[in-house]
Amino acid sequence: MVQRVAVIGAGISGLTSIKSCLDEGLEPTCFESSHDIGGLWRFKEEPEPGRANIYFSVILNSSKERMAFSDFPPPAELPNNMHHSEVLQYLRLYAQAFNLLQHIYFQTTVTAVSKGPDPAVEGQWVVETEGRDGQRQTHVFDAVMVCTGHFTKPHLPLQDFPGIETFEGRYFHTWEYCNAEGLQRKRVVVIGVGGSGGDIAVDISRVAEKVYLSSRSGAWVVSRVGQGGIPVDMLGNSRMDMMLQKFFPSWSVRTAEKKLNDVFDHRLYGNYMPLEVLMFLDCILKKITSKFSNLKIQYTCAKQVDVVVFATGYNYSFPFLPPALQSKSGYRLRLYKHVFPPGLTRPTLAVVGFVHGLGSLTPLAEMQARWATRVFKGLTSLPSEKNMMEEIEKDTELMFVLSERNPIQVDYIPYLDSLADLVGVRPNLPWLFLKDPRLALQVFMGPCTAYQYRLTGPGQWAGARQAILTQWERVLQPFRTRVIPEPENRLTSKLRIMLVFSGTSLLCLILCKKKCLCSVFSFLLVPK
Amino acid sequence: MVQRVAVIGAGISGLTSIKSCLDEGLEPTCFESSHDIGGLWRFKEEPEPGRANIYFSVILNSSKERMAFSDFPPPAELPNNMHHSEVLQYLRLYAQAFNLLQHIYFQTTVTAVSKGPDPAVEGQWVVETEGRDGQRQTHVFDAVMVCTGHFTKPHLPLQDFPGIETFEGRYFHTWEYCNAEGLQRKRVVVIGVGGSGGDIAVDISRVAEKVYLSSRSGAWVVSRVGQGGIPVDMLGNSRMDMMLQKFFPSWSVRTAEKKLNDVFDHRLYGNYMPLEVLMFLDCILKKITSKFSNLKIQYTCAKQVDVVVFATGYNYSFPFLPPALQSKSGYRLRLYKHVFPPGLTRPTLAVVGFVHGLGSLTPLAEMQARWATRVFKGLTSLPSEKNMMEEIEKDTELMFVLSERNPIQVDYIPYLDSLADLVGVRPNLPWLFLKDPRLALQVFMGPCTAYQYRLTGPGQWAGARQAILTQWERVLQPFRTRVIPEPENRLTSKLRIMLVFSGTSLLCLILCKKKCLCSVFSFLLVPK
Repeated sequence: MVQRVAVIGAGISGLTSIKSCLDEGLEPTCFESSHDIGGLWRFKEEPEPGRANIYFSVILNSSKERMAFSDFPPPAELPNNMHHSEVLQYLRLYAQAFNLLQHIYFQTTVTAVSKGPDPAVEGQWVVETEGRDGQRQTHVFDAVMVCTGHFTKPHLPLQDFPGIETFEGRYFHTWEYCNAEGLQRKRVVVIGVGGSGGDIAVDISRVAEKVYLSSRSGAWVVSRVGQGGIPVDMLGNSRMDMMLQKFFPSWSVRTAEKKLNDVFDHRLYGNYMPLEVLMFLDCILKKITSKFSNLKIQYTCAKQVDVVVFATGYNYSFPFLPPALQSKSGYRLRLYKHVFPPGLTRPTLAVVGFVHGLGSLTPLAEMQARWATRVFKGLTSLPSEKNMMEEIEKDTELMFVLSERNPIQVDYIPYLDSLADLVGVRPNLPWLFLKDPRLALQVFMGPCTAYQYRLTGPGQWAGARQAILTQWERVLQPFRTRVIPEPENRLTSKLRIMLVFSGTSLLCLILCKKKCLCSVFSFLLVPK
Repeated sequence: MVQRVAVIGAGISGLTSIKSCLDEGLEPTCFESSHDIGGLWRFKEEPEPGRANIYFSVILNSSKERMAFSDFPPPAELPNNMHHSEVLQYLRLYAQAFNLLQHIYFQTTVTAVSKGPDPAVEGQWVVETEGRDGQRQTHVFDAVMVCTGHFTKPHLPLQDFPGIETFEGRYFHTWEYCNAEGLQRKRVVVIGVGGSGGDIAVDISRVAEKVYLSSRSGAWVVSRVGQGGIPVDMLGNSRMDMMLQKFFPSWSVRTAEKKLNDVFDHRLYGNYMPLEVLMFLDCILKKITSKFSNLKIQYTCAKQVDVVVFATGYNYSFPFLPPALQSKSGYRLRLYKHVFPPGLTRPTLAVVGFVHGLGSLTPLAEMQARWATRVFKGLTSLPSEKNMMEEIEKDTELMFVLSERNPIQVDYIPYLDSLADLVGVRPNLPWLFLKDPRLALQVFMGPCTAYQYRLTGPGQWAGARQAILTQWERVLQPFRTRVIPEPENRLTSKLRIMLVFSGTSLLCLILCKKKCLCSVFSFLLVPK
């Protein structure tokens, strides 16, 4: 019988794992190697080896409602795309609200996790820790939740850059980047155009002489805000959207491409790629002459460059886990639904938050933790080892097609729903339409926020309905900074001479006034 | 007979004035107080009193084809929105190509301009200068062109902020701002949301703890890039657009508002104002919690603020001109068509580049210089003083309606055309359609670039036709940084699960496929 659970790490995944343990009546003990909670989201002035690091200017790609824990809506006054300091603030509020801090041992590093001491008691684990003063301790737990994330070990592929040893400039991985200090008037190449690469290129462009952004395969650039300046992830992520995409896949892809290209013609910008990778950038067009070039070409011109920034991602690293638990399937760790190693005699070790989707990690990690704790307690069982292995291989194959280089990628809502099914908290839409049509409409057509997974079943939260019905209110609140005069209808003819806009485009926009219908449709659920 | 012309200042206006003098067979002598050309566009590490100053990250709001001199297309490889260092580079190329440098006395400040020594010779001017070594000199000229710009004297309205003297933080005018150095982790208020206010707020937001952007009346936010990432000023500024706006003014205004609000709902963002002011910003939505608040409210919360940046614009200043020439009409200097003081016995003093329009200054200043030199030579005459006075008053009244606080604002293309009429270089469209339909189509439906004013008449340039026909080529060139694979049509059904876009919006976009027509129409003249 599982009772005592070790949680390794006190970032987003660790915190929600502690909470899930508490919700299930388990006894969590969290070991955090640093002096504070927050993990990735605790900004460090100097990067700390073995820990995730962020740059000062980083803001969340996801909007606050999409990144929220399912039973803890963020304060309305927080901006939609939170700065890292605001994310940490939100995590502090969460930890405080659910009394999580008392379960955390800070400055305590887990050095090893190994099978339990008593062969008669299956599934136990020995967790070895080292305190700040070097003091080593050994603990026995009934289960372990590994919440150390996947941004701790920078991937620096120097071997792919023959001749780099003779490069006279400076080079470093984005993991080391805190701010643009020291890069004033430099000529900088950023290699890699993921979230960090794009963000950091823009950051540096404010002070550098020139910034080149280099990409092997191109990327899709998606703004954090969509139509009208509304957070983009609040607009196209409903269950209805998902259904439409499922039924009309190729049409969906074409139309999405068109929509993205309307903002930023990827072919024109030399940044074309098939719709595989979506990334978020705000202002790639600033001073940067976006010189997307092949890595090889890049390197041959590196003589004119002072600094090279490798935005080449991360390798995963679980130095404390037994090698047997780290077997691979393709590029990825062999984990059933990215959580459970399939070869255990009893499923008492879970990896939480070691996953990536086109959306915030928070709901993913939270759902994994809810599922894992239910599995620990035996309330939900896992398939046979053979079946798990088969599903992992199938997943790996699909992922390889989608993104060879991002082996922990999942399909966001379907993944959440599949775990929610196992936990028993997936919303039953037909039933909801009968019982509470107003709520059902939001659940079906509104953004798929995590509150949906607290409406019924284990962990049901009485505030979930209200949280869903007020989610747009919290999105709009930070905009309310100024009383606006009522619109004046006296747009006199004199004003016309100020117009610099295309009568052409105007004419056409009017011609297809049906677009208005579309706006109305899109914003149906946005109280304006 | 005018022969010797003094040109005061060697920025954009001064350089093009020298060139216009040379084109008209006059002898220009340019006095530049600093050691180099470029004026505003020569970045200074430290702001220099009495001179315009820019911040390091500044890039042009206008695209290069719209800011180009009419007979000097910019190099194709320059980015469309040039960094200040690239603008200076372009100005150097211009000065070099037309041998302008030899006419410039550097480090020579004009201290006074007064009426000529010989009452028998009407219209002459005595120009007093002071060299670097303090050496004073007196010169007599037949005419004077004042090209000192309007960004030299910061407007710092401290009197409107009672209590500022007790404010314990730091405050300064944008004129003093070079970069965000020293503002790390500060709480900053930027007062004023013009071009500089917006730009600098974004700049500071990368390092500050919090940036508030304060606006009394709101502003319209226009991106530097329009549909598909094409420079926005290349898309809606044709003569055809102007015609449509003229015939359908209120519809044009409404549709333009709608278009702007599609990108950034100004009412939602608490930033609504009637369509009076257009400004260019790239990424106002970044970390900034755009707290648009009334100045008074602003100040009461200033306790939590470390730094106040006054983006409150400039006053004009011509310390060397006789007071009689500086009489005012409303808020503006009394200048006929923003160039000639009307009270002179002979029109031999012209102010060039002391004007503002929704577009680049270059074509405006150049056309003024071309007109002024023709007037100097007597090839074009001015109306009577009374008529000039009447037109100035009429202009002032109109300007007051449009923008009380920007008294040197002009209506871009109509103003250019009105001067071009006087110079005799306004393109004759009906005739052009008969003679050269391909060119006429570009002149009528393409962006109204300055090359159009070199097709015929005085100062005609043989390269003008080619410059117009190749303008899109030069716009597209900087994008060509990467060879792009041909699009693949194998967007398999597996890819569909990656989509996060709204099926809703997609459906509607498809519903109004007429929009495609619009794109085709808009981009008719864009070779893609």
